[in-house]
Amino acid sequence: MTDTPVEESLFQIIHCFHQYAARQGDVETLSLQELQALLTDNVPRFMDSLGRKEPYYVTELFRAADKNKDNQLCFDEFLYVLGKLVKDYHLQYRRQLCARHCAQHSLY
Amino acid sequence: MTDTPVEESLFQIIHCFHQYAARQGDVETLSLQELQALLTDNVPRFMDSLGRKEPYYVTELFRAADKNKDNQLCFDEFLYVLGKLVKDYHLQYRRQLCARHCAQHSLY
Repeated sequence: MTDTPVEESLFQIIHCFHQYAARQGDVETLSLQELQALLTDNVPRFMDSLGRKEPYYVTELFRAADKNKDNQLCFDEFLYVLGKLVKDYHLQYRRQLCARHCAQHSLY
Repeated sequence: MTDTPVEESLFQIIHCFHQYAARQGDVETLSLQELQALLTDNVPRFMDSLGRKEPYYVTELFRAADKNKDNQLCFDEFLYVLGKLVKDYHLQYRRQLCARHCAQHSLY
């Protein structure tokens, strides 16, 4: 069975988590440094938003996602971060649509 | 700025939601029929699992996601469904890795 584009997208995101989790320490979980690298390399549009490059931003995000406070993010805990990303890119998606609509109708 | 593969994946999933939401009724939300079509067309691996093709499965999933009980799923409510999908494809990803490892090492 060939994967649909949505299935490929889901696997892409999952593969990204495991690529960074495997870097050091527990190969199944993300450390703070691994999360920082994952976000910087893979979601630059998210990180470019105001304040997200401040060192405390990723630390706070990590702390909020780390439900069991073991200083590591397992895949289920990473879903909290993914939720933030999806919401943020949803806003960007709508902004792009809006900008395209305005350009087509010469609204600026 | 060019999108990274992870960003493209996020936009793909978001675009899919809006494609189906736009079909009928409120163009910003999914009806039960739109959710059914979205899942059947885009995540066949998920739907192929035991019991998910039973009519009540998607009805129950829809009901659980519809937090404000307006009989529509807005994008934030759809995140509940997305969480289920990501967890399911994570299991499939691990099964594929395991099968590949076993094949490489002639474990079957």
